[in-house]
Amino acid sequence: MASLGIKTLGAQEAIELDKELMGSGGYSLDQLMELAGLSAAHAIYKVHPPSNGERILVLCGPGNNGGDGLVAARHLWYYGYKPTIYFPKKGKNEIFERLSTQMQKLGIPFTEDYETALKETDHIVDAIFGTTIRPPFDAVITAMKSSPLPKTSIDVPSSWDIEHGPPSEGPGKDFAPDNLISLMAPKHLVKYFKGRHFLGGRFCPPYLEEKYGLDLKGLYKGVDQIAELPRLE
Amino acid sequence: MASLGIKTLGAQEAIELDKELMGSGGYSLDQLMELAGLSAAHAIYKVHPPSNGERILVLCGPGNNGGDGLVAARHLWYYGYKPTIYFPKKGKNEIFERLSTQMQKLGIPFTEDYETALKETDHIVDAIFGTTIRPPFDAVITAMKSSPLPKTSIDVPSSWDIEHGPPSEGPGKDFAPDNLISLMAPKHLVKYFKGRHFLGGRFCPPYLEEKYGLDLKGLYKGVDQIAELPRLE
Repeated sequence: MASLGIKTLGAQEAIELDKELMGSGGYSLDQLMELAGLSAAHAIYKVHPPSNGERILVLCGPGNNGGDGLVAARHLWYYGYKPTIYFPKKGKNEIFERLSTQMQKLGIPFTEDYETALKETDHIVDAIFGTTIRPPFDAVITAMKSSPLPKTSIDVPSSWDIEHGPPSEGPGKDFAPDNLISLMAPKHLVKYFKGRHFLGGRFCPPYLEEKYGLDLKGLYKGVDQIAELPRLE
Repeated sequence: MASLGIKTLGAQEAIELDKELMGSGGYSLDQLMELAGLSAAHAIYKVHPPSNGERILVLCGPGNNGGDGLVAARHLWYYGYKPTIYFPKKGKNEIFERLSTQMQKLGIPFTEDYETALKETDHIVDAIFGTTIRPPFDAVITAMKSSPLPKTSIDVPSSWDIEHGPPSEGPGKDFAPDNLISLMAPKHLVKYFKGRHFLGGRFCPPYLEEKYGLDLKGLYKGVDQIAELPRLE
């Protein structure tokens, strides 16, 4: 496998890094999700500016990855897009309720009919996530996979294993998004990813960089919220 | 008085708009402060890039304006600056505790000696706010005013009246920052402000724009978090 020339995180490390950031680091979920979703929106703008088509379908899972997708959709709205949200299973944290309210106040539609939505969009954002894919997301991933439209995954292509990449069976078999935005640091799976790859979530403090052997210095320019990383051949 | 050609908000309107955003709008203080502080950091980068001097002194009052300053300082650190914080009276909301933790984890120093700090910086950020200025901020504003360094105020130049601008007496008399970043919408006071003027806090939903007679459409470009507004002559 090709190397990215940058340290990547395993599954357990990624979970611990998040926990530490919200524990000793003093961050709230609201702050992290806001910055993560903002950077996802910036990556989407880069790969698919509104002039390529304003309609963006954001497929949101029940967890924090889905929340990042909701925040991204809100920012995209302000950038001139027309997002549609598929969010069939709301997470337990009250932040999902608030994010949904924010969307509704912008007139962003929520749909349950992902099949029609997949046909009536210009770009698909995959914010489902999860290695074990339960209904209805198994069918959603199958449908998404068969769409010829460009796709951008947030942090982890849904159904991919954080360490071992694409699954060899199940609905996610052969699912390969065109673009990926890794949050805070790339995960091991990026070894298997060949599309355009961005880094976002510009908030990893140096003491956690050091603890997890990361080296993010110099990747971001100016006030950019994203950095494009080298593409694997 | 010159006109900005854009609707401005009065004191009561500004308070109500914030309240509605956090009430019916579904926003948390964490989300709004994160985006407000981010946009302030972007304005500071614009008027004072790190190549002009990396040292930034952020003077923070006890309220939400001070919190915006803390968030701005955190982002500025990631953009290559060396911020120093003066934050003598922490606000009651636990968010100030968390923001302080985030700063400390980045090694951003907190100082109580504003007089020395004002001499050992390259740019001053005014995030004090308040029309009635109580100790120690009366002395801080007097000292800040006498510094020849460039100054950027967040939302409201400290000691200025939101509707009537600069005070005719007291420590804030003749205080005129070089730059101002108005959050969400400019306040009436901008009629009296002659420096570089930015708008940030790109999150006003159209139903509140309409309610308060604002028209922010088209001001921001692309994914920009700030828009520079016309300068008054």
